[in-house]
Amino acid sequence: MEDIRIGIIGHGFMGHEHEKMLTVMDGYRVVGISDIDLKQLEDVKEGIKRYHSNEELFQDPEVQVVLIAANNNQHHDLALQAARAGKDIICEKPVAMNLEELDDMMRITRECGVRFTVHHQRRMDPDFCTAKAIVDQGSLGDIYTIKSSLYGFNGNMHDWHVYIREGGGMLYDWGVHLLDQILFMMPEAKLTNVYADIRNVINQEVDDYFKILMRFDNHITAEVELGTYYLTDKMHDKWFERHWFIGGNKGSAYLDGFSPEGKIVRTAGLLQNAGDKRTMTAAGPTRSFGPPPDGKILTEPVPEVNTNHKDYFENYRKAYWGETEFLVQIPETRRVLALMDAVRESGRTGQSVIFEA
Amino acid sequence: MEDIRIGIIGHGFMGHEHEKMLTVMDGYRVVGISDIDLKQLEDVKEGIKRYHSNEELFQDPEVQVVLIAANNNQHHDLALQAARAGKDIICEKPVAMNLEELDDMMRITRECGVRFTVHHQRRMDPDFCTAKAIVDQGSLGDIYTIKSSLYGFNGNMHDWHVYIREGGGMLYDWGVHLLDQILFMMPEAKLTNVYADIRNVINQEVDDYFKILMRFDNHITAEVELGTYYLTDKMHDKWFERHWFIGGNKGSAYLDGFSPEGKIVRTAGLLQNAGDKRTMTAAGPTRSFGPPPDGKILTEPVPEVNTNHKDYFENYRKAYWGETEFLVQIPETRRVLALMDAVRESGRTGQSVIFEA
Repeated sequence: MEDIRIGIIGHGFMGHEHEKMLTVMDGYRVVGISDIDLKQLEDVKEGIKRYHSNEELFQDPEVQVVLIAANNNQHHDLALQAARAGKDIICEKPVAMNLEELDDMMRITRECGVRFTVHHQRRMDPDFCTAKAIVDQGSLGDIYTIKSSLYGFNGNMHDWHVYIREGGGMLYDWGVHLLDQILFMMPEAKLTNVYADIRNVINQEVDDYFKILMRFDNHITAEVELGTYYLTDKMHDKWFERHWFIGGNKGSAYLDGFSPEGKIVRTAGLLQNAGDKRTMTAAGPTRSFGPPPDGKILTEPVPEVNTNHKDYFENYRKAYWGETEFLVQIPETRRVLALMDAVRESGRTGQSVIFEA
Repeated sequence: MEDIRIGIIGHGFMGHEHEKMLTVMDGYRVVGISDIDLKQLEDVKEGIKRYHSNEELFQDPEVQVVLIAANNNQHHDLALQAARAGKDIICEKPVAMNLEELDDMMRITRECGVRFTVHHQRRMDPDFCTAKAIVDQGSLGDIYTIKSSLYGFNGNMHDWHVYIREGGGMLYDWGVHLLDQILFMMPEAKLTNVYADIRNVINQEVDDYFKILMRFDNHITAEVELGTYYLTDKMHDKWFERHWFIGGNKGSAYLDGFSPEGKIVRTAGLLQNAGDKRTMTAAGPTRSFGPPPDGKILTEPVPEVNTNHKDYFENYRKAYWGETEFLVQIPETRRVLALMDAVRESGRTGQSVIFEA
């Protein structure tokens, strides 16, 4: 196969990441990069064109696929321009600022006959894939809770992410991944109900904390919590990374860290309903809570997964040449955007929001 | 002062606890104990009467205060009988099965001119008092989240707590404490909104898992989560006890265990909005999450509190002799019962419930 010839729009944080990955991957060639801030192009690698405008990129016949890595509020306009220039599109997440923008993008890309997908590379995160494997293998019995949490110490956010008008805030930045992961984990389940608390703890303009509860019709309640200023001094358990907890009626599982450490945990046997056992604690007697006796807690290793962000582009290459489907389908990203609307509504009103009734 | 002469109804788990405490405390004398199961009276201590019926207890002129430690579904009838016998009442929690019962109890105790309070001794829990002291001292800035969580490995519950008709389930057993603590922590704040997930994970009849989110008009969202089958093999951090996390815009605080270990945690400084720092993680680059640099995380000790469940009865004694107010006022317990109704409604409907609008 010949190389897929990529033009990257935006040479910020993610633009650099794409340049780094795609210049070493088989099957790809980075033709050129544009940025509205020309200074951002100074460190573009040798052999890659530096466009002085996005229009130059769109007009370059060498470019087959436009990879949009500009600020969130530019995705819509850039996608329309790319489509009208006949280019296939990979757009950074969030695909758009809202549903109206996305519906427009879906219509124009369809009319122009170009292929359109979104860079949701975190479907390949090792901790997420391990959590998904645990859910898929079914050994926890009936699952009642899936929690995904991510805590930081920085408080503030970077660059344009602190401005509302550019699509800033943690819900757009990380929330879109965390929600996409939950929906991708249970593609068959209807999400009936959403309840969310969203805060500007440190930032003036944009959200930097959220807790989102999602009730599915498969009886699982999923929770996503992200805090950028959510502190501990406990450095064990990889506090300032992501954590998963999955609870079922046959056991629990936990994962700590992006490169996860965790266990599947079960008990050697449930309590027999006998009344005379008590645990003395500092808070007075309790029979229900306190350290378990030796041998009560049993563990199993979590499934091993083999996954890498590079796999996103491996899939893209195969799908580009017709060997498979694109990993990320636009209706999936539309569902995530709709969910983010429900999350914002719930955060604003303080009430739960019916989602897929 | 003379001793307060107590009659205890119910010689189960809590009846034994009350007997043990009140037989060694100054200012109290346990006159006698009744239990509808006479076998339960076999180990009543020497010198304490063993009543063959509750009526015998109510008719004993020596008894001034009836301490009701029978199953939850008996509180209402026993309180009415005690009031009509002219006895003051200390009732175990939950004070009643529902608001209708409590309103009836309030009316009759008022008519009979007896004093009526509830044994919410967990307002004296050391971890709770520490958490309350942290909130009260105000050094975390604007608090956005207070979490109280309690995890067990047993799954099942004890004795009559597995039966709905007797007032079983973890919401009645521990939930009433956890909710009372949150309301007692912020007595001035209105609780505007409740969202709850309640499950029977292991038990057939009764709830053994719940997560309750409470939005207050002081901008704090409080969360209470209890799981009786919520497992890990991490025995550090006192997993199978209670945990508190309090997050504010000037720092966080955490507490682990009933006899709590914890810290107040702050950062040496927030991120300056500069774009070139990245943290490499297993999940690819992220600038927002990952281990903090040395010296970034600062800690302070949590406030020291001096508290004991015995303090509940010290207060009762003083209040009995008119030196102070009863720690637990019946309208407070009515608010907790109303909240439990809202929690059940939210759990049943899947929707949030407006509480104190």
